[in-house]
Amino acid sequence: MTTLAALVFPGFQTLDFFGPMEMLGDPAYGIEIVTVAQNRDLVPSRHGQRIAVDATLADTTDYDLLLIPGGDTALTAAKDPELLQWVRDVSAHADRVMAVCTGTILLGMTGLLDGRRATTNKLDFLETVPLAPKVNWVRQARWVEDGKFFTSSGVSAGIDMALAALASLYGHDKAAKTAYGCEYNWNTDADADPFAKLAGLV
Amino acid sequence: MTTLAALVFPGFQTLDFFGPMEMLGDPAYGIEIVTVAQNRDLVPSRHGQRIAVDATLADTTDYDLLLIPGGDTALTAAKDPELLQWVRDVSAHADRVMAVCTGTILLGMTGLLDGRRATTNKLDFLETVPLAPKVNWVRQARWVEDGKFFTSSGVSAGIDMALAALASLYGHDKAAKTAYGCEYNWNTDADADPFAKLAGLV
Repeated sequence: MTTLAALVFPGFQTLDFFGPMEMLGDPAYGIEIVTVAQNRDLVPSRHGQRIAVDATLADTTDYDLLLIPGGDTALTAAKDPELLQWVRDVSAHADRVMAVCTGTILLGMTGLLDGRRATTNKLDFLETVPLAPKVNWVRQARWVEDGKFFTSSGVSAGIDMALAALASLYGHDKAAKTAYGCEYNWNTDADADPFAKLAGLV
Repeated sequence: MTTLAALVFPGFQTLDFFGPMEMLGDPAYGIEIVTVAQNRDLVPSRHGQRIAVDATLADTTDYDLLLIPGGDTALTAAKDPELLQWVRDVSAHADRVMAVCTGTILLGMTGLLDGRRATTNKLDFLETVPLAPKVNWVRQARWVEDGKFFTSSGVSAGIDMALAALASLYGHDKAAKTAYGCEYNWNTDADADPFAKLAGLV
């Protein structure tokens, strides 16, 4: 059984997390999703829905896949040394490490992306990328794949990135079938990013 | 304060619910979202995430907006007469009633859509629409607006529909700004539905 650690922290961005859950949770892959948090309290999303926790950081770092959502509070979560170390420890063994929106900055602050290509959300790009200055931040990309690391642009881009990660593991056709099942027009071009221009980054 | 009843039931489709939450929950609107369920137990989504409940059906029917997600289990939820009556009672007063995917069939089974135009998911269209035979089901539509009722095609279409409902209440520009904030390519044409053709409905 393939296991996915789906990290949450108070104020995580709702669609950053649940868009990828819909894709990665397609029963066609048989991935066991484990919601992981700093402690066992219910975790409120940015929009107030409270999520139950399956495991804490202390329980294990043994997962096959990792998803890190964003949200303004990802930068608060990134101040927790135990959380950053957990991300490093999980990533050392995981087959794929995925981060969405500001979650990519949190991932960058672990040092794991140093010298690698990555992207993040476009509206806060210039304010946030200095927090992980050794990353080769890509200004125009819906998502970026570099080795096992998949990072996406803002919020809804996490859906496209999650499908790309599934495609890398299970093949394009199977990922396209997942998108079809959700009646989702998958943006399959990683470089097609109209928001970079709208945000004045290119 | 505008209030939104966001209905959940065991097995609700994850993105059906949380896509609209991301849009309707944009702080720009100041909408208070209340997660409503049949009882106070944690409610597991289709993909296993367990959601805490803010209110039960018995608490109140006084909401300004209603969202009904889908999922295969929406048809099970629709067998609960108390739930169907709650939907009728909320809808009598609400300004907007939104349903996604199979949630539109549940809404149709209340009788509230009789004689109205509505759409639903395209992959299960032919099997499910006979459950609400007096509805004018539209085969090709991303979403349909008829009076206060907004119904959408499958899963991801709920995001486009929620934005359309926001546009109807607060103006197109404000809804477009919400989509932009999520780096979401809003499908603004309600009639553009490639999945109807892919599913052999047109």
